[in-house]
Amino acid sequence: MPSVKAAVLTAFRHPLEIREYPSLGEAGAGEALVRVEMAGICGTDVHLWLGQLAIPLPVIMGHETVGRIERLGAGLKRDWRGNPLSVGDRVTWASSVVCGECYYCRLKKQPTRCVSRKAYGISYCASDAPHLRGGYAEQIHLRAGTAIFRIPDSIPSESVVGAGCALVTSIHGLERAPVEWGDVVVVQGTGPVGLAALALAKHAGAARVIAIGGPPHRLELARNFGADATIDVAAIPDAADRRRAVLEETGPFGADYVVECVGHPAAVNEGIDLCRDGARYLVLGQYADAGNISFNPHTITRKQLQLIGSWGFEPRHVDRALTLLEGARFKELFAAEVTHKFALTEANLALETVRQWQSGKSVLIPDIGGREAAHPGA
Amino acid sequence: MPSVKAAVLTAFRHPLEIREYPSLGEAGAGEALVRVEMAGICGTDVHLWLGQLAIPLPVIMGHETVGRIERLGAGLKRDWRGNPLSVGDRVTWASSVVCGECYYCRLKKQPTRCVSRKAYGISYCASDAPHLRGGYAEQIHLRAGTAIFRIPDSIPSESVVGAGCALVTSIHGLERAPVEWGDVVVVQGTGPVGLAALALAKHAGAARVIAIGGPPHRLELARNFGADATIDVAAIPDAADRRRAVLEETGPFGADYVVECVGHPAAVNEGIDLCRDGARYLVLGQYADAGNISFNPHTITRKQLQLIGSWGFEPRHVDRALTLLEGARFKELFAAEVTHKFALTEANLALETVRQWQSGKSVLIPDIGGREAAHPGA
Amino acid sequence: MPSVKAAVLTAFRHPLEIREYPSLGEAGAGEALVRVEMAGICGTDVHLWLGQLAIPLPVIMGHETVGRIERLGAGLKRDWRGNPLSVGDRVTWASSVVCGECYYCRLKKQPTRCVSRKAYGISYCASDAPHLRGGYAEQIHLRAGTAIFRIPDSIPSESVVGAGCALVTSIHGLERAPVEWGDVVVVQGTGPVGLAALALAKHAGAARVIAIGGPPHRLELARNFGADATIDVAAIPDAADRRRAVLEETGPFGADYVVECVGHPAAVNEGIDLCRDGARYLVLGQYADAGNISFNPHTITRKQLQLIGSWGFEPRHVDRALTLLEGARFKELFAAEVTHKFALTEANLALETVRQWQSGKSVLIPDIGGREAAHPGA
Amino acid sequence: MPSVKAAVLTAFRHPLEIREYPSLGEAGAGEALVRVEMAGICGTDVHLWLGQLAIPLPVIMGHETVGRIERLGAGLKRDWRGNPLSVGDRVTWASSVVCGECYYCRLKKQPTRCVSRKAYGISYCASDAPHLRGGYAEQIHLRAGTAIFRIPDSIPSESVVGAGCALVTSIHGLERAPVEWGDVVVVQGTGPVGLAALALAKHAGAARVIAIGGPPHRLELARNFGADATIDVAAIPDAADRRRAVLEETGPFGADYVVECVGHPAAVNEGIDLCRDGARYLVLGQYADAGNISFNPHTITRKQLQLIGSWGFEPRHVDRALTLLEGARFKELFAAEVTHKFALTEANLALETVRQWQSGKSVLIPDIGGREAAHPGA
Repeated sequence: MPSVKAAVLTAFRHPLEIREYPSLGEAGAGEALVRVEMAGICGTDVHLWLGQLAIPLPVIMGHETVGRIERLGAGLKRDWRGNPLSVGDRVTWASSVVCGECYYCRLKKQPTRCVSRKAYGISYCASDAPHLRGGYAEQIHLRAGTAIFRIPDSIPSESVVGAGCALVTSIHGLERAPVEWGDVVVVQGTGPVGLAALALAKHAGAARVIAIGGPPHRLELARNFGADATIDVAAIPDAADRRRAVLEETGPFGADYVVECVGHPAAVNEGIDLCRDGARYLVLGQYADAGNISFNPHTITRKQLQLIGSWGFEPRHVDRALTLLEGARFKELFAAEVTHKFALTEANLALETVRQWQSGKSVLIPDIGGREAAHPGA
Repeated sequence: MPSVKAAVLTAFRHPLEIREYPSLGEAGAGEALVRVEMAGICGTDVHLWLGQLAIPLPVIMGHETVGRIERLGAGLKRDWRGNPLSVGDRVTWASSVVCGECYYCRLKKQPTRCVSRKAYGISYCASDAPHLRGGYAEQIHLRAGTAIFRIPDSIPSESVVGAGCALVTSIHGLERAPVEWGDVVVVQGTGPVGLAALALAKHAGAARVIAIGGPPHRLELARNFGADATIDVAAIPDAADRRRAVLEETGPFGADYVVECVGHPAAVNEGIDLCRDGARYLVLGQYADAGNISFNPHTITRKQLQLIGSWGFEPRHVDRALTLLEGARFKELFAAEVTHKFALTEANLALETVRQWQSGKSVLIPDIGGREAAHPGA
Repeated sequence: MPSVKAAVLTAFRHPLEIREYPSLGEAGAGEALVRVEMAGICGTDVHLWLGQLAIPLPVIMGHETVGRIERLGAGLKRDWRGNPLSVGDRVTWASSVVCGECYYCRLKKQPTRCVSRKAYGISYCASDAPHLRGGYAEQIHLRAGTAIFRIPDSIPSESVVGAGCALVTSIHGLERAPVEWGDVVVVQGTGPVGLAALALAKHAGAARVIAIGGPPHRLELARNFGADATIDVAAIPDAADRRRAVLEETGPFGADYVVECVGHPAAVNEGIDLCRDGARYLVLGQYADAGNISFNPHTITRKQLQLIGSWGFEPRHVDRALTLLEGARFKELFAAEVTHKFALTEANLALETVRQWQSGKSVLIPDIGGREAAHPGA
Repeated sequence: MPSVKAAVLTAFRHPLEIREYPSLGEAGAGEALVRVEMAGICGTDVHLWLGQLAIPLPVIMGHETVGRIERLGAGLKRDWRGNPLSVGDRVTWASSVVCGECYYCRLKKQPTRCVSRKAYGISYCASDAPHLRGGYAEQIHLRAGTAIFRIPDSIPSESVVGAGCALVTSIHGLERAPVEWGDVVVVQGTGPVGLAALALAKHAGAARVIAIGGPPHRLELARNFGADATIDVAAIPDAADRRRAVLEETGPFGADYVVECVGHPAAVNEGIDLCRDGARYLVLGQYADAGNISFNPHTITRKQLQLIGSWGFEPRHVDRALTLLEGARFKELFAAEVTHKFALTEANLALETVRQWQSGKSVLIPDIGGREAAHPGA
């Protein structure tokens, strides 16, 4: 029986190991086997590697994946959109599967908080059959109920993986806290989530978007993604100074809408300071528990703020993302974000480029084969 | 020239002094002179007395007032609702006057954050003419632009002052963060704001309201105001134990909606813990800056919460409050909240009953005259 | 093999026939067999009988049903709320089953417009196996995917069938167009939907509800359900006169919110006339296509109205309805609406009481047996 | 005393007359005198000329005007935005003045429905002093309380008058019924309101906008304004055929959002047919009462539609419009809409170009003087 290579996280803060698992020959009812073509390295993978979220080791990471269908189980004839599915189709999928029946799924319409939600590349222990439940591998096994999407031919895989979970997370966030047409918006952070959020904010009619982040190559990306002004956190290391710089762009009262896409808890106090009274503040980046801050709740009452959280995304956000990526501008922007390509065996090197903010987006290409991996000097 | 007595805060944490000011004989264009009949002692007055808000001393406190019109300035012919105004009419008024023209008033529809908003009983220095700008006095001077309301004869003054700024503040808060019909609601705090918020939550169709507070005489009030269950913070001093008690009432996931009406910053972390994922949390009670807490912003993202602040109120909330107080149930509930009545010269005693949570609501009645002030053993 | 009696609509405007179908002995995977205990006669059944909706004859009507489980198919272990299901449990169910996968179910969140939605008692031809898909029968067969609810013991069947589809339809309508706390509301129509809508409007904090309808025994019901004022369409047959009567109750500008629960197209023009400018108008009762009216669209622009439609309901509205019916007030109100009880063989008589507005609510009780059917003089 | 020329509507369907009025030398408190530089001819002016709205004759039409301040009355020191105002400043203003105190202004937040609202160019009889209350004149008198806006130097008058009341009306409409980011939108009508609405819909993130209208020169404008597809009503005269053409662009279910900007009542039935179930339909163009249609209200219930009306605009919408016009794209688009310029004495000719849809936008320039008026072949 042929075997499948995967890059496996076996211990936090230790190099991933290349392990082999038995290849799956058959797919059960509703299941699919997919040959991985490209897997994104998400900033969350760095958090996982650092041990900042509780996950069952060993794990095959990778929750932003494009591949081709090898096997389709009984009854799996159409993708989530109702399009016919065939062996050989290029697909992506929502990284989480929910139960559809619990308190959060049914009654409260908060399926991202489903009590039995599990995510590919995060929640499945690689020791348990069928083992292959992450994107850092040659093959992946999709359980019944996975929301699979056939990728339109016009969208390159780089666009899909470049957008990654950042775009769908941002779509969900901006659905929960809509940018109102004409808002002056500040985006904190110019990582993938920040870039996606600013592209969406502009697309939703923001009058002006100011991005705070770095390093310079990411601020350049931010301007490409639509930022009207960018502020380099390294050039202005003091938050009070940054506030002054932001207010020069927003006017003296601050922003109508701020999106936090940083992940460091301290960003939240800075973001609140950038809000005008009555503003909305979308806290989108605090995905990992990175500790506490000293916080003054009086500010919420006095400035009559709205602070809104959003977690993960639903299949319909993937549908929306693919529709956006069919547009020329989004297709090119997100494809251009993919600056570094690695073989599966270079997974540790790839992870390091993300950890050090060296790349726009780094991806693994299992069959990158003989040809040179494309990662300038990484 | 006759003089007017007032109880004046001249130094923080020192007894109020009874001072005399020249009586105002005439009202300028759009202005009104009002003979005070009843002035409420608000919990905020205790915060002011303690020096927890920046105000200009000396100040005549009192922002919850009912009186009778003595003089009407030129052009002031109708109240805010358009009803004719005459000398002798019993009135109340919105405690703040806004400019109607600034960034917040005009463009952002956040008039409670008007840049030049001033509040009777709080923002006016008693050393400046016309001096009489607070309710702890025999007479008050209302500037042009004040939103005056003639009180319908069917509503006793006790109902209006008993409702005080708590009811209008709660109306504004629940307008910003509406209770959805069928919500399971937790109200933190059983002071006047907490009682008003729970009455409104029930009135708006909450399926169940759980009130957390004390002391026992206030929990009794809470049950009268509609609480389905009450939890005594003194009886269950530990927040984790209280959470267990609350979840027994809400179900294991927590409340759909939580209202903070406590004022202590620590209440915010407890309130967040009582929210189910995807819940709304109205932070209504953090009116004074009472310091920082250790806070984990990851919770906002993970539980995809909405935290909503609300500050003060607008004239239309007074209109709404008076409409509610015309209903038999609200009229009686809020009148019954007034348990202690004092003469103006007893202002310090009155303030003390509020500071020590001895009363439902304490009020000053300038002409309480020879008859015994009604304050059982205070 | 034992047989099952059903009252069958075989030709429009002709008496229902009592037919016999083979009893179903087994339930397939996910399916259930239910012994009918009580079936409501809905006003819609009259429309169906008159041929005003396109349905496949013959049909066993009845979409408001309570019964006891006789057989549970493989895998059907819990009800929609997650409670365990057993043979003998008293249950009700959402009358429609949707696909969960189509454009309306998935992408647009409008599952009541599911392209393959089918309703018990309406959409299933009784000639096709398993035949028993309506409530006017001794037994009913529930397909896999039906949202079944175990009825709490504290709720009598009369409450559930008395509420019928009217309550859940109204819950859905008021979810789409929420009554805002403090609204002055007019309800057009005092049939079951009108009564449910007015109970909900009051429960959601309407300041005042005016009901227009008849005959007098239904206006009496309306007052019991919470109407502050009622207007008898027979006593005031002219719409312009009725408008004057309504404005005396609402004030001269009209209502903040109007709910149409009449079904006659002409009601829509009258309802718009009762709206103040900027009002919301929920068009809830135009379930059947009863023809066109002469209509002036200029009114929508000039009065800047919102007209909102709502169709059917979803399982979560049944969940909400059962929660409401656990409350003493709703339980009793809706149980009291059931004024007429008939044996299955009296189905034509029962239908006639509904057609002629003689009853509050008429129901069929298949095993009403030897005892006198309870229908005073019908 | 010098005199002022004005083009005056003295009788419906009769040519405007050039009349002279005494020039106003002084402005009262809060008032302003403005020398007209450019006045737009709105489609509404054609409706007024035809006698389709009740107005007091004689009237000086013109409610889309740019001019320079000649006199400022006492106390008028700042424009609506708070910028200093001086003689010589180029300004525009909200065409209506409201009372700020009535039921609609105060309680219901529907100031466009103010009970004493009056509009320049529409509601003022030219026989009454100060006579000059319309834009088709050399001078205009602005009453105290008018919302005046100093026009930023970077915005040409053509942009402001080209946008006219169409842009602000559309801004208000889309505020009442927001385009949701990602919506598929149909705009009915390619007059000034239709063009503005489609530009705004694209700006607010519509995934796709289909415009229905004509003649061809206006469809060309529509494409410039952002239409992804245009449908010529002359080329496809049958509504059922147009529906097929639209569904090819939207997909088989129809549009998420339709905006009616036509004004003919029949457009409303066509627009409803273009809505998918659960869609929003903004009825924006039925400004004049142009009669009744045969209408089936069942559609509102069955398709669970939202029909939303919107009337006129508020000063803050002018603020928003000017902010948009500072952007390069909007500035150029709306300036380019002004294709025909006329002297005041050519007002009848100008009106005719609008009536016959010959121009993008026609304007009057009182001091167009010796130079050739710019109206190709009109």
